[in-house]
Amino acid sequence: MTSPEFSYPEGSAAFPHAGLVGIAGLAPHEIFYLLDEAEQWVELNRGAEKRRELLRGLTIINAFFENSTRTLLSFEIAGKRLGADVVNMAVATSSVKKGETLIDTAMTLNAMQADAIVIRHGSSGAVQLIAGKVGCPVLNAGDGQHEHPTQALLDALTIRHAKRHFNGLRVTICGDILHSRVARSNILCLVSLGAEVRVCAPPALMPDAIEQMGVRVFHDFPAALKGADVVMMLRLQMERMEGQFIPSPREYRHLYGLSLDRLALAEPDALVMHPGPMNRGIEIESNVADLVGRSQITTQVEMGVAMRMACLDVLTRRARKVEGWA
Amino acid sequence: MTSPEFSYPEGSAAFPHAGLVGIAGLAPHEIFYLLDEAEQWVELNRGAEKRRELLRGLTIINAFFENSTRTLLSFEIAGKRLGADVVNMAVATSSVKKGETLIDTAMTLNAMQADAIVIRHGSSGAVQLIAGKVGCPVLNAGDGQHEHPTQALLDALTIRHAKRHFNGLRVTICGDILHSRVARSNILCLVSLGAEVRVCAPPALMPDAIEQMGVRVFHDFPAALKGADVVMMLRLQMERMEGQFIPSPREYRHLYGLSLDRLALAEPDALVMHPGPMNRGIEIESNVADLVGRSQITTQVEMGVAMRMACLDVLTRRARKVEGWA
Amino acid sequence: MTSPEFSYPEGSAAFPHAGLVGIAGLAPHEIFYLLDEAEQWVELNRGAEKRRELLRGLTIINAFFENSTRTLLSFEIAGKRLGADVVNMAVATSSVKKGETLIDTAMTLNAMQADAIVIRHGSSGAVQLIAGKVGCPVLNAGDGQHEHPTQALLDALTIRHAKRHFNGLRVTICGDILHSRVARSNILCLVSLGAEVRVCAPPALMPDAIEQMGVRVFHDFPAALKGADVVMMLRLQMERMEGQFIPSPREYRHLYGLSLDRLALAEPDALVMHPGPMNRGIEIESNVADLVGRSQITTQVEMGVAMRMACLDVLTRRARKVEGWA
Repeated sequence: MTSPEFSYPEGSAAFPHAGLVGIAGLAPHEIFYLLDEAEQWVELNRGAEKRRELLRGLTIINAFFENSTRTLLSFEIAGKRLGADVVNMAVATSSVKKGETLIDTAMTLNAMQADAIVIRHGSSGAVQLIAGKVGCPVLNAGDGQHEHPTQALLDALTIRHAKRHFNGLRVTICGDILHSRVARSNILCLVSLGAEVRVCAPPALMPDAIEQMGVRVFHDFPAALKGADVVMMLRLQMERMEGQFIPSPREYRHLYGLSLDRLALAEPDALVMHPGPMNRGIEIESNVADLVGRSQITTQVEMGVAMRMACLDVLTRRARKVEGWA
Repeated sequence: MTSPEFSYPEGSAAFPHAGLVGIAGLAPHEIFYLLDEAEQWVELNRGAEKRRELLRGLTIINAFFENSTRTLLSFEIAGKRLGADVVNMAVATSSVKKGETLIDTAMTLNAMQADAIVIRHGSSGAVQLIAGKVGCPVLNAGDGQHEHPTQALLDALTIRHAKRHFNGLRVTICGDILHSRVARSNILCLVSLGAEVRVCAPPALMPDAIEQMGVRVFHDFPAALKGADVVMMLRLQMERMEGQFIPSPREYRHLYGLSLDRLALAEPDALVMHPGPMNRGIEIESNVADLVGRSQITTQVEMGVAMRMACLDVLTRRARKVEGWA
Repeated sequence: MTSPEFSYPEGSAAFPHAGLVGIAGLAPHEIFYLLDEAEQWVELNRGAEKRRELLRGLTIINAFFENSTRTLLSFEIAGKRLGADVVNMAVATSSVKKGETLIDTAMTLNAMQADAIVIRHGSSGAVQLIAGKVGCPVLNAGDGQHEHPTQALLDALTIRHAKRHFNGLRVTICGDILHSRVARSNILCLVSLGAEVRVCAPPALMPDAIEQMGVRVFHDFPAALKGADVVMMLRLQMERMEGQFIPSPREYRHLYGLSLDRLALAEPDALVMHPGPMNRGIEIESNVADLVGRSQITTQVEMGVAMRMACLDVLTRRARKVEGWA
């Protein structure tokens, strides 16, 4: 399947990147390429036999320096369904605690002849740093406040499944835009694909000069919702709930929580999205999160496994010497 | 192999349940069905080639919200020996810590298209709650003080291997009956299979009205042991060792610990069982735990892997569209 | 490939040991046998298809009672590349915390019909204790201050790759000799293979009577380096950095850190080795650790996977009924 409003330039059915550090740097046709590749895995995962031996003999290391159950599970399942040998490097038991530098850890993983390394790290730029030191593709599973590219790709896949296109689609992203790598990657991805992206946050949680990313800025949630085709709510991090950024969770909910009343301001068929885990009753009400036909929250999880399978497949093609690589 | 004293009703060689939340709700012929199915895996596991590809392509998620090395290992080995892709969701890194509700966690696991979810949780009823929200079989690996059905099934398999039948067999279960899901599931299982079950505990650790489960109640351990064919000791939980329930570990050992002298009150070939991990020198003396020919404690561990293989096989048959499903 | 200066005695191309608890007890021809076996896996791991099904159907349990990212990852990757089902028993979730004895844990792992158990434990002798209680090969992945045999073997493999022989090779091991199982296993291995081993440490970190192991003792690092063919630096453990053993990390670096100036005292082509994780700027300077053509530190990691594959292969041959077993 190819995206309806897009055809590849001649000879471009390939993905020239040696890793996936961020959405920044991907051309729209490369994003569409990954979305199209993911479709086959969506189908596969819905069937009874979910395993392929495509990556048989390859070693994938999930190196998560920050805890994340769902992203780790998603990558682990994706790798195993492709037949790879998947090993997880747990934070709690890592040599990092022994004072080893990040680069030494990376070089160790590389020396074990990993074929792909999936990294989550608390510091922005850590993944790029590692990618420059190892001889295999590196996939960013979230680094600091920088990027979380597979999240943006799975969100795009979810939107395309429901809406079929991105051109002119009004997407409202609401929450802690300032600290969110999910927001950042989604803005880069959706603007690149032609959507009209609106961001909405309390002033203290909105980055300066974000208009330069091609988005419209709102501080008033109802105004941001008006006419939206997609409403993407961000998780309010616990550590922001107290202190300087927001007055209180209750106040936040009152001003920026998504309720049924607020959702009614958007288009009648507007999608509701959330990267999870949700704080029900804070950034999103339960009856919105569970709204049949509108909430895409579990679909996002499903698309996540398919998208990570696509990324692992595409990025290891060069090493496997198969087509589809520039 | 079928159980000697049991033949299936016509056409009933099937297991109609969509999951295994507890022993309660299983008919005796269903329990025997699982015991019989486990026999093939006992044989397989004793051979050199222990792997089958029966569940190839299936994803099994072990979601353990409570720590348990041996049960987790047992399920993980069982799933891998059947050829499934097994992923563990570790408690310490789970989104649960981020305040996600149990149902949202369950829906996330489900959206990753798990083919079976094995759950251990500290709250009674948590597994049933999840089972109602997901589209795949759920296996209870222990929930609060409710049930631990695979433990009861592996205990029954262990007993059948040694004693060949259950009818009229005198089984004494001694320990913290009040808080023990192992005791609860074993009582339900053994009473259902026709055994004469005796429970023995200090008054503070015995549930009210437990006679209604069809057992005989003892507070005097020697009396409970007299003529027993099987003596099943429960682990004394650390947190009960101090405070309101028992005066002291030393006192407990004196009154309810299984010594060689006490074991002599049971039948000369009485089996000694313990679900582990043991507190040697508290509920059981070392020379009893290690008594060759009588102690079944390591056999229980062996039967555990086989029984979990049987449960994973049988419960995924509907999805795999193979026979043996009602 | 066989080692250049060694030929097997007639009919000895076999490895008679039922486990690998230490280098002590291995004859030189047995060490060479393992080195030779590892060569094929070095080759395999450098290729695109890294998986073999040699150990298909076998269950390997990694029971790590002490944290160690790199050794655990190395064994896990080794087992998976040989096609085994590998399960990790995590320390943090282990029954050990529930007061279970080590022998009971071992008997539990054994009852799950493990085909090999890899053990790391904080107490010297723990692995030997377990090996005596289980019916499958046990591999020591480090026990207390006793031995870490696969580290010594991978170090020997690394040295042989660069130097082709051991006879008369001058190897300087510098660091906390007193507490280091890496040093101990390396001394046993290298002395056995004919190398001239020098050990260098502050007086408080040097064992009494270590000369009896066949090494030369130095307290002056420059003297120990003179003419060395291999310089093996040990990690300074954090817990030794303060208090009775060394005055301060700065003082330690000044006296025992490996700088370019110091390295110039060794042979012009001397190898630099470190088992990792490194404290850069304490026991080793960054420009030495990264010295192209001299530093073997990432090669050691690579050799580690190959050597563990060799050990797992060789030690499970008896159970698999294949040749190469006495």
